Amino acid sequence: MADLKSTFLNVYSVLKKELLEDPAFEWSPDSREWVERMLDYNVPGGKLNRGLSVIDSYKYLKEGKELTEDEIFLASALGWCIEWLQAYFLVLDDIMDSSHTRRGQPCWFRLPKVGLIATNDGVLLRNHIPRILKNHFRDKTYYVDLLDLFNEVEFQTASGQMIDLITTLEGEKDLSKYTLSLHRRIVQYKTAYYSFYLPVACALLMAGENLDKHVDVKNILVEMGTYFQVQDDYLDCFGAPETIGKIGTDIEDFKCSWLVVKALEICNEEQKKLLHENYGKADPANVAKVKALYHELNLQGVFADYESQSYEKLIASIEAHPSKAVQAVLKSFLAKIYKRQK
Amino acid sequence: MADLKSTFLNVYSVLKKELLEDPAFEWSPDSREWVERMLDYNVPGGKLNRGLSVIDSYKYLKEGKELTEDEIFLASALGWCIEWLQAYFLVLDDIMDSSHTRRGQPCWFRLPKVGLIATNDGVLLRNHIPRILKNHFRDKTYYVDLLDLFNEVEFQTASGQMIDLITTLEGEKDLSKYTLSLHRRIVQYKTAYYSFYLPVACALLMAGENLDKHVDVKNILVEMGTYFQVQDDYLDCFGAPETIGKIGTDIEDFKCSWLVVKALEICNEEQKKLLHENYGKADPANVAKVKALYHELNLQGVFADYESQSYEKLIASIEAHPSKAVQAVLKSFLAKIYKRQK
Repeated sequence: MADLKSTFLNVYSVLKKELLEDPAFEWSPDSREWVERMLDYNVPGGKLNRGLSVIDSYKYLKEGKELTEDEIFLASALGWCIEWLQAYFLVLDDIMDSSHTRRGQPCWFRLPKVGLIATNDGVLLRNHIPRILKNHFRDKTYYVDLLDLFNEVEFQTASGQMIDLITTLEGEKDLSKYTLSLHRRIVQYKTAYYSFYLPVACALLMAGENLDKHVDVKNILVEMGTYFQVQDDYLDCFGAPETIGKIGTDIEDFKCSWLVVKALEICNEEQKKLLHENYGKADPANVAKVKALYHELNLQGVFADYESQSYEKLIASIEAHPSKAVQAVLKSFLAKIYKRQK
Repeated sequence: MADLKSTFLNVYSVLKKELLEDPAFEWSPDSREWVERMLDYNVPGGKLNRGLSVIDSYKYLKEGKELTEDEIFLASALGWCIEWLQAYFLVLDDIMDSSHTRRGQPCWFRLPKVGLIATNDGVLLRNHIPRILKNHFRDKTYYVDLLDLFNEVEFQTASGQMIDLITTLEGEKDLSKYTLSLHRRIVQYKTAYYSFYLPVACALLMAGENLDKHVDVKNILVEMGTYFQVQDDYLDCFGAPETIGKIGTDIEDFKCSWLVVKALEICNEEQKKLLHENYGKADPANVAKVKALYHELNLQGVFADYESQSYEKLIASIEAHPSKAVQAVLKSFLAKIYKRQK
């Protein structure tokens, strides 16, 4: 596994070198230096789970056959395309959210020499994806499907981000707009497609599969991605800050979190009034009142029930799938996130 | 011509309707309303030259044969993809430049309810392009070439924007970094590819041509785009504000304009000192000194020479092209911009 990660990181260096010599642009030392610094700062510093899972998934689909060096390279290149996509979203999201830190360092746009040039850097990151795909997949039969896939998933992610942004705008006027179905919609589009479906879809295309025949796989992965984000919302409030690596601020930030949505669903009129009065305020006294209500409503128990029900449902859907190899892919994803504490 | 424009605008309504019902996303009334308002505000309000020129070019390539309704629709759809691309760049550029107005109305991000959500709206505009292409060109033999073309041109534009942004950063420390070759590079990548090459390349693909065989056409259009931008730089200082519709601020903004680059090239040491001391300052007294120097150096005459030389060179290159139809496309572009006053 440590070995896989170092192979994966080697591929990053190869892809970066190619991008910095892209013949479609006339490079100067200044521009090459800028892009290299921007890539190193924003692309490889995360957990790399999304990228690595393309290689893992592809291995399962090959049912234990040893992968060739070429296959490992190609699966890694697709994995990096997802990491590039993630970097693009994060650079722009941080600007929109006025964030300060990301992955333990200042956000890219916070660097004094960068500022709003970061917007164009985000655009560049996005543009690198089709360059990588063209460099390595142009002659594959599934090239056009890869382009369609990345385009569709990016569109879904941007649409999810849009409903998240306009919902917060509306929600600040009226908390009752926050419902389970809205929460599910935001999470599905903003997170699940690109984090869960996209890596597996890339591996399926590489294995010669037609994605139109795998709508069931897509549905399972979107369900899993939704469960993953509910965990995220839960840990933001109930996780140990030293374990999750940050202090959650969803309550202060008026987020359409699974917790507030669930609370609104099960609370009585008096408790609803308390939520309306205290949710989305920076004062620790307000935050404490919301947290006390969450305890009173036993959201920890409600979450535990949700977690075990989601797990049962996901396992049942996975085991209904005709292919053992696909089952293995999906089970490995589920094992990585079930009952996670961070 | 008025008729062509109204046909073109009808296609906008069709494309918008399809996007607002895109099955890849689960729409709500709120999100549909947001996207519709965003599109109407940002996409159709420009001069539409880039978009309309796809239809014009395609007509020339068909050598007078009457276009079918289907062909007009498809050429218009490609034209709108370029207008969408333009809208995407403008929405993000206005954020990066802290602009106030665009096309006679406040910039999109300046609207109180919008703000930095405009960043994601820019991303959405960009994502609409492959949705339009997929809806209408998925079964065409040239579909993959269209995707590659839009990807490459967007990459070049973002790279040109990057050198413009980092050059201004560097230029503020050292004006002598502004050279003719740097100016040519910024203009070529930031403007010429998407404004001049892209419309013709779309028409060529629709006409069944292989773009690899039209490198000469690309080079001529990039030359023309460069000439167009030099005119822009010239008019910013010497154009009549009532004709060009704005008051130029390139001198104040420390822009790497053709004028300052030319001035640096032909001035003596004393004049260079004056430029270094006065360029890029908001005070009208500084601006007046720069303009006086431009007159002293006879930049109007230098520009007139550049203009006629560019024209002669372009005509010669065009007439060397083996196809009369392609010559007609290129000459119609040139006629539209030669000696323009706005």
